[in-house]
Amino acid sequence: MKSLYFHKELSLREVPMPRRAPGEALIKVLMAGICGTDREILKGYSEFQGIPGHEFVGRVAECDTSKWMGKRVVGEINLACGHCSWCAKGLGRHCPTRTVMGIVNRPGAFAEYVTLPEANLHRVPDEVSDQSAVFTEPVAAACEILEQMTITPGTRMAVIGDGRLGLLVVQVLKQAGADVTLIGRHASKLDLAKTWGVRVLCEGAQELAASSFPITVDATGSPRGLGEALRLAEPRGTVVMKSTFHGAANLDATKLVVDEVTLLGSRCGLFAPALDLLRGRRVTVESLITRTFPLNQGLEAFAYLNQNSVLKVLLDMR
Amino acid sequence: MKSLYFHKELSLREVPMPRRAPGEALIKVLMAGICGTDREILKGYSEFQGIPGHEFVGRVAECDTSKWMGKRVVGEINLACGHCSWCAKGLGRHCPTRTVMGIVNRPGAFAEYVTLPEANLHRVPDEVSDQSAVFTEPVAAACEILEQMTITPGTRMAVIGDGRLGLLVVQVLKQAGADVTLIGRHASKLDLAKTWGVRVLCEGAQELAASSFPITVDATGSPRGLGEALRLAEPRGTVVMKSTFHGAANLDATKLVVDEVTLLGSRCGLFAPALDLLRGRRVTVESLITRTFPLNQGLEAFAYLNQNSVLKVLLDMR
Repeated sequence: MKSLYFHKELSLREVPMPRRAPGEALIKVLMAGICGTDREILKGYSEFQGIPGHEFVGRVAECDTSKWMGKRVVGEINLACGHCSWCAKGLGRHCPTRTVMGIVNRPGAFAEYVTLPEANLHRVPDEVSDQSAVFTEPVAAACEILEQMTITPGTRMAVIGDGRLGLLVVQVLKQAGADVTLIGRHASKLDLAKTWGVRVLCEGAQELAASSFPITVDATGSPRGLGEALRLAEPRGTVVMKSTFHGAANLDATKLVVDEVTLLGSRCGLFAPALDLLRGRRVTVESLITRTFPLNQGLEAFAYLNQNSVLKVLLDMR
Repeated sequence: MKSLYFHKELSLREVPMPRRAPGEALIKVLMAGICGTDREILKGYSEFQGIPGHEFVGRVAECDTSKWMGKRVVGEINLACGHCSWCAKGLGRHCPTRTVMGIVNRPGAFAEYVTLPEANLHRVPDEVSDQSAVFTEPVAAACEILEQMTITPGTRMAVIGDGRLGLLVVQVLKQAGADVTLIGRHASKLDLAKTWGVRVLCEGAQELAASSFPITVDATGSPRGLGEALRLAEPRGTVVMKSTFHGAANLDATKLVVDEVTLLGSRCGLFAPALDLLRGRRVTVESLITRTFPLNQGLEAFAYLNQNSVLKVLLDMR
């Protein structure tokens, strides 16, 4: 089958069809999304080698139980052992021996087919298009903030970063009742967020006062964005680190301790609440798609993504 | 009056007696303790200039209300405005216009006399000696962890750093029911902690497994200690930053996000629970005193503190 394969560099490669283990489904990939983590992987993140890709929608082609056959699905990306204390707590996404599709020791979805345990699958409701369903994983990651903390209605929150993830995070927080300000650098992206009723602020145009938000979110995946999120956090406030970045975070230790700030790492979320949001059209995702490439133009898709004003780039395997 | 005064360098200096404002008490300092923050101030922390010192016990010499006259007291170090939203929440120690005795724009206790608002004072119970009472502020700082999070009995916690603060933190956590491991570098300090029933571990002798504690506390005030506290924290665990250090914390951003670790800055605490612990002898403090100097040997006291195995150094103004 055709795939994008990373080994020192990304290439289009013919690889054998994956074989599913018992309990797993073989899934024909319909569409896949390229994410910031994929770009980090190309820079060496998690020392991944193989087929990247963890945002996808597909159709089950083979499986053990009839209930999944032919169904349109998305899949949770962490493959947990199912037996350890983390799995027992329902936190398989922190299972210490987990693999992660397209990120840690497990082939991903930038291919014609992928395998995943049936336990990881979620059926996609008919109302949700392929183009929307492919956002389930990043919307779930945005929803994870709501799993980790209680947002009371009207809570003032600042989100730093108007990229793909930031634009999902502001929508998820807004529908949870927060009073959201998005801080970004790109007029077109900020304009889009404005149409959702989000307050926006162009970085540089106006400096926000330090210590002015009870909760801030870094969605830039850069030390600069994280530093700004910390600067804007009130005493006893919370800074959510929503983006993975490879390397060291250089933080103002004095501010963290003196203002008793809580820094909260936040990663993958549950798919069910994300699918609910997509079904109810309570988050807008299709307008975030800048361009769709066929799989065999996958290298071009990655190159295209490096352009500044690009939002979501999809691969189409249909 | 005699004082230790910091302006570019620390010196013994004759200064005018402080004048108390209405609502304030003039306090004859009996004893004062030298803390890590004082040493940071001498390196430029908070750009403080004047008389440092914020750990003290004294006797009220002048005040407005008779109830305090002649009483032996300790004093909360944050001087809040009393009117803002932080003060209204009982969080005057985060009041944005606060001064902090001996740290931010307010003379401290390394002198014969100091002034503080009566509202900041706490009477020292007769059972508590001067030598114990002088530990109220650092014991309160250790207790602050219990204000910020719930420690369920048996919770496994690692404290990094066997210095003055670390030795108070382990005692406070232990009496709160935690199962505490102290990780340090000094055999004599670890031996002392062992007598309190704390599990101890000499750094370097044995490496602890990564991600092995649900809660860790950095009490070293160094990037190295904070890094170790993060390394030892479980997924979804909490790292408490208990020490102020001047500068940037270089943290493993990937670990923070992927393991969804919470980093919790922790500073000053309330005096009442600390005095309760001291009165009930539920924390041992007098055995932490390595040496006591008269005020006019204050420079020698600071020099002495630079020795490695030294724990608490006190100044005696009685």
